Amino acid sequence: MTISGRHFLQIPGPSNVPDSVLHAISMPTIDHRGPAFKELFSHVLTGMADVFGTSNQVVIYPATGTGAWEAALVNTLNPGDEILCFETGHFSSLWKTMAEKWGLKPTVIAGDWRTGADPQKIGEALAADTDHRFKAVCVVHNETSTGVTSRIPEIRAAIDAADHPALFMVDTISSLGSVDYRHDEWGVDVTVSGSQKGLMLPPGLSFNAVSDKALEAHETSTLPKSVWNWTEMLAAGRNGMTPYTPNTNILYGLKESLRLLNEEGLDNVFARHIRFGEATRAAVEAWGLEVLCTNESEYSPVLTAVVMPEGHDADELRKIILDRFDMSLGAGLSKLQGTVFRIGHLGDLNDLTLAGTLAGVQMGLQLAGVKVDPAGLGAALDILRES
Amino acid sequence: MTISGRHFLQIPGPSNVPDSVLHAISMPTIDHRGPAFKELFSHVLTGMADVFGTSNQVVIYPATGTGAWEAALVNTLNPGDEILCFETGHFSSLWKTMAEKWGLKPTVIAGDWRTGADPQKIGEALAADTDHRFKAVCVVHNETSTGVTSRIPEIRAAIDAADHPALFMVDTISSLGSVDYRHDEWGVDVTVSGSQKGLMLPPGLSFNAVSDKALEAHETSTLPKSVWNWTEMLAAGRNGMTPYTPNTNILYGLKESLRLLNEEGLDNVFARHIRFGEATRAAVEAWGLEVLCTNESEYSPVLTAVVMPEGHDADELRKIILDRFDMSLGAGLSKLQGTVFRIGHLGDLNDLTLAGTLAGVQMGLQLAGVKVDPAGLGAALDILRES
Amino acid sequence: MTISGRHFLQIPGPSNVPDSVLHAISMPTIDHRGPAFKELFSHVLTGMADVFGTSNQVVIYPATGTGAWEAALVNTLNPGDEILCFETGHFSSLWKTMAEKWGLKPTVIAGDWRTGADPQKIGEALAADTDHRFKAVCVVHNETSTGVTSRIPEIRAAIDAADHPALFMVDTISSLGSVDYRHDEWGVDVTVSGSQKGLMLPPGLSFNAVSDKALEAHETSTLPKSVWNWTEMLAAGRNGMTPYTPNTNILYGLKESLRLLNEEGLDNVFARHIRFGEATRAAVEAWGLEVLCTNESEYSPVLTAVVMPEGHDADELRKIILDRFDMSLGAGLSKLQGTVFRIGHLGDLNDLTLAGTLAGVQMGLQLAGVKVDPAGLGAALDILRES
Amino acid sequence: MTISGRHFLQIPGPSNVPDSVLHAISMPTIDHRGPAFKELFSHVLTGMADVFGTSNQVVIYPATGTGAWEAALVNTLNPGDEILCFETGHFSSLWKTMAEKWGLKPTVIAGDWRTGADPQKIGEALAADTDHRFKAVCVVHNETSTGVTSRIPEIRAAIDAADHPALFMVDTISSLGSVDYRHDEWGVDVTVSGSQKGLMLPPGLSFNAVSDKALEAHETSTLPKSVWNWTEMLAAGRNGMTPYTPNTNILYGLKESLRLLNEEGLDNVFARHIRFGEATRAAVEAWGLEVLCTNESEYSPVLTAVVMPEGHDADELRKIILDRFDMSLGAGLSKLQGTVFRIGHLGDLNDLTLAGTLAGVQMGLQLAGVKVDPAGLGAALDILRES
Repeated sequence: MTISGRHFLQIPGPSNVPDSVLHAISMPTIDHRGPAFKELFSHVLTGMADVFGTSNQVVIYPATGTGAWEAALVNTLNPGDEILCFETGHFSSLWKTMAEKWGLKPTVIAGDWRTGADPQKIGEALAADTDHRFKAVCVVHNETSTGVTSRIPEIRAAIDAADHPALFMVDTISSLGSVDYRHDEWGVDVTVSGSQKGLMLPPGLSFNAVSDKALEAHETSTLPKSVWNWTEMLAAGRNGMTPYTPNTNILYGLKESLRLLNEEGLDNVFARHIRFGEATRAAVEAWGLEVLCTNESEYSPVLTAVVMPEGHDADELRKIILDRFDMSLGAGLSKLQGTVFRIGHLGDLNDLTLAGTLAGVQMGLQLAGVKVDPAGLGAALDILRES
Repeated sequence: MTISGRHFLQIPGPSNVPDSVLHAISMPTIDHRGPAFKELFSHVLTGMADVFGTSNQVVIYPATGTGAWEAALVNTLNPGDEILCFETGHFSSLWKTMAEKWGLKPTVIAGDWRTGADPQKIGEALAADTDHRFKAVCVVHNETSTGVTSRIPEIRAAIDAADHPALFMVDTISSLGSVDYRHDEWGVDVTVSGSQKGLMLPPGLSFNAVSDKALEAHETSTLPKSVWNWTEMLAAGRNGMTPYTPNTNILYGLKESLRLLNEEGLDNVFARHIRFGEATRAAVEAWGLEVLCTNESEYSPVLTAVVMPEGHDADELRKIILDRFDMSLGAGLSKLQGTVFRIGHLGDLNDLTLAGTLAGVQMGLQLAGVKVDPAGLGAALDILRES
Repeated sequence: MTISGRHFLQIPGPSNVPDSVLHAISMPTIDHRGPAFKELFSHVLTGMADVFGTSNQVVIYPATGTGAWEAALVNTLNPGDEILCFETGHFSSLWKTMAEKWGLKPTVIAGDWRTGADPQKIGEALAADTDHRFKAVCVVHNETSTGVTSRIPEIRAAIDAADHPALFMVDTISSLGSVDYRHDEWGVDVTVSGSQKGLMLPPGLSFNAVSDKALEAHETSTLPKSVWNWTEMLAAGRNGMTPYTPNTNILYGLKESLRLLNEEGLDNVFARHIRFGEATRAAVEAWGLEVLCTNESEYSPVLTAVVMPEGHDADELRKIILDRFDMSLGAGLSKLQGTVFRIGHLGDLNDLTLAGTLAGVQMGLQLAGVKVDPAGLGAALDILRES
Repeated sequence: MTISGRHFLQIPGPSNVPDSVLHAISMPTIDHRGPAFKELFSHVLTGMADVFGTSNQVVIYPATGTGAWEAALVNTLNPGDEILCFETGHFSSLWKTMAEKWGLKPTVIAGDWRTGADPQKIGEALAADTDHRFKAVCVVHNETSTGVTSRIPEIRAAIDAADHPALFMVDTISSLGSVDYRHDEWGVDVTVSGSQKGLMLPPGLSFNAVSDKALEAHETSTLPKSVWNWTEMLAAGRNGMTPYTPNTNILYGLKESLRLLNEEGLDNVFARHIRFGEATRAAVEAWGLEVLCTNESEYSPVLTAVVMPEGHDADELRKIILDRFDMSLGAGLSKLQGTVFRIGHLGDLNDLTLAGTLAGVQMGLQLAGVKVDPAGLGAALDILRES
């Protein structure tokens, strides 16, 4: 069946890609060894350092976010290293599983998938680790599976309070460019990110921001590495080059999306996302439904995970909404499957598209037989209208 | 100021252009005298005849709708000819003014700008015209300034009842491809249309569909004509050619938009527009506002003109909505300026974009200080959800 | 059959459209009554005045070049007016024919289709017209059918020498943006142009540049006019508006093509075209073929028309070249059909594409059985290499 | 400086991307967990299996070719494994270096960088390896640094003759889709490829085709792997899914490029490339220069590496050609730097673009002071014209 009009892509990433970015990525591919590429690559390296908030050179991989996770581990650690992870949800668990595949030994602080990484518990675990077995602390900034944003500066403070030398690694795949983040100021050693969320690009690029301490660890790291090797990426990058074929056309798009982010101003972008989160939660609460995140100081500006009332299947709801209203929502992942659905409100998004999104969720809930107060949408509009 | 997200273009045309149509018009321009063009042009001529509902060859001009109006007049009439017009609103008046510029003598049946062309009054005027001074009856099918759709078959019946030989000319610029229309079956002699409304294209193409009777009048018509001359357009078109340079890239888009219309099915397209009109009027009425169109059988499926409550300026409302919500609405035109605003709900549009549109209108009204019942949006959603 | 690689569009217009222009025209259509459009339209009006070399406001029509011809006539002349035309080729003849359709009375100075409009003959005709029956002198600047560029300043001087008050109208459809042209400085009253040649756009826009004298004639002109009416076009344009729906998306492209022309610099653009003409003629002559244009001071920088040796059909050659090498060349028009083919070398074109073009012509000639010296291509390369 | 016209991208990849592919990759990104993605991904998996000539499921990585190299090694081998490599040029050396970074032990059969991998020498090395220390034989099909295409079926025969159980791994990054290749029929175990050459896409996708024997080795392979893990890629792919975020927009392009390849027919595509190689070598030889490849049965249909005459620097030549004619050629790599330049003639390419390319090389050589016979280009045209 043909569906008229624009698809509503309201998953928590890939986010909607602006037309000008789509146009940019469709310019003819150029020689990645010629002067025009050097200019482009130097430009986006600088721009990305600004977005990460780092004065160090960043690394751009022609790969999606999972590659950048792997890069963070293999560039800094050694076989059998222990790492400390906090289970905030599906994606923190995947990262831990990856570490195991590489022969690392993760210790996981259990979480309830409704709150962020707990600075106090991390501090306690590190304080107890008197012989410094933990070589890294791995945390997901914005847990895309739950809509919870962990408090990175407080975790840094906890590490410092424990006087622990572990590297601090943070996954910002779904937060960078949408939520305030400061690699240097917050004392993060490796920040991992990707292109398809706050950067408003298609998937295809991923990133590492690295501290001097991480670079030092890199020098002695013995995990095997070739594609992800920072040494070669950084050396080539200094000359506006890449050690192997880059993802040229997505890099065109990155140049344009950096332009857009700077034009709007990152602070305005962050404020816009916070406001969208507030409006969305207002609707959820007015519908009489529950937001998965239980900690007010950790609400995600990027997405809102909604608990499906008992007796209803979240995936059936999503199917109804896709079939009837041509809107994609995020599924509940692993242990949340069927009991949670996720509304993305990130990237190239404005008030009226969010209003249409929430209208679609409300109508979908009604069609699925969920009892909701139809004033829910109005509660969101009150926030959009007044703020 | 940068505005994130997609602009809401909810004027009654140009309508939103589907991505695949935008892509089509950006393919490299080809030789308009070569075989590839011939194939393209023959294809769209056939497709447009289907959309008009005519078995005659249509005429495609590289011009916007006003050109096609002029073409209808200069191809069939003679200096000093009298014509009968019905004043349904701004656009019917413009057409009449154009006729005067060409030395034609329009007799205008006054209207109230809230109802369509009245078949009975037209019938009376023709019956009174016993010496057949009127050479043409000119009616706008969907009056874009008022949101009123005239009943063409009933007007045809009235002409027939009066046994009057006048040509019947109909402007379908804002209805074709959105509202049921049948050039042959309804006995229209010249149908005028354009690309930027129901055909979901940028402006740049306009059309004449012509009856045999119109072609006969053309043969003796003495108004000067060159660019608009049917004889040359039809002769060249028979060979997949144009007598002068065509608007090649917009024709690529026309091929794609015809594909989309056929894929959805014209009947489904018409039903979708009717449903959007119903939902919009439900909101307007629930807000406590007045729809300009007062005749239920003439509600436009393409747009809804809303009467601004006394003491409020519709243009101020539109400015608030544009500035705050990045949505364009249609202004009140000529005598309706400031007292009416128009919501377009045509073209490449779906339920959630309409919901976002109506949410924006509701919030805008509230910001403008208009007292509206916020349940208005819900009334529209009830229709979108249940139908 | 599928053909790999880019089509070679080497007709004398439409010319190749740069990728960035194609991208620009595929941006979503906007409200042509809103502030973004006003900014766009004011911008391109200013830019086009610069390209024409006029300090007066220009007129931009949503139509192709033929429309702008008609506009030039109907805005300034009166029924039955006599005009003086010079027959430089097919397009000058078409313009004359159009004038007749409008009831004007053209006197044509015969030409040989191998040279430009002769200033001396025009001067003589005007000197003989002591009672000033001629209201306009109409000349084609670059005759696209023959590859001859008339000497506009010398014609102006001839008119002045005859002290004749006729308006001076010049068609620059295929020269503007490729060949030096100065509306004000050269004392032209109406310059006609189009988008699809030197402006590197798809067809769809056409232009009138107008002198104060032309505007004065306009005030009393009685030929019927509506779509083309300067009064309304100029009044609306002053506010960044159009009196009826404009060709929005092609206007986006115009903004981008003006940017490109300014970036290269118009003088560089003109020099590039002259050089391409020299290289092309060098090849033609080295092949042992004849350039149609016989006057060295009138060689066109835009295209080269080549005389087909006796016993060979130019259209058969063009078919071989299209089928075998996927290149479109221009046909001989009207009395030149079959005996001439035309090589376009205008617009978004560089040395290597011209080299490929001439290689294709050379191979095509050989395949068609025309005896040519294969050193022809080398003669062109000598010029491209050394200049 | 602005350069008019299309850049000539005549490096041996990335190749020119067809407009329709560029358009495809600029369609809005979709949910990679929804039904539309499943359909897309299943479609391209099937299409790629056809291009590889395999009945097994292939693996598609959101990474460039180097990633697919790494994937081939880590999915099948164990720490410390010995492998047999043949040094055909720069890229075979890079692959060997990568193996070392992973703790593998490559034995390299030295080559002269002017011929392909020698089946006889490989056979001898394997025959001598009686205790089967070599776990894999790694060969580059089309060595992009030299323009030499190794004879894969003969190497397979040599492995079989030695009755050696080593896995046979082949890099087809620059040959797949341009040169005949048959994964199953030729008995290859792992074929590595990428998107940016014969598949006419931007960089961003890479591939592994895998035999049952390779899958068996995979089951016991202990090199660490996560991102590249075949088990997860194949399991997810069976459901039209990916185990992590895919490179969605480049996959759109892949669907379109597969359509184009099938429309032309792979056999026609291969023949076209062979013909382009012949024409290019004809020019090189007629210029009096030397083709790097010395073995007639191993000439690459994809690129031609040209030996720079003594006393001239190939990189200076390339700079002249880039600056003067806006054409990118391939540099000599590692030990060939400065002494060789490479002309790419692959992908979306036609006769006239190749003619323009060779014209540019000829003019560049002349400008660089290299004595060349200007009849060189003519020798190429003779082949293009007659075949």
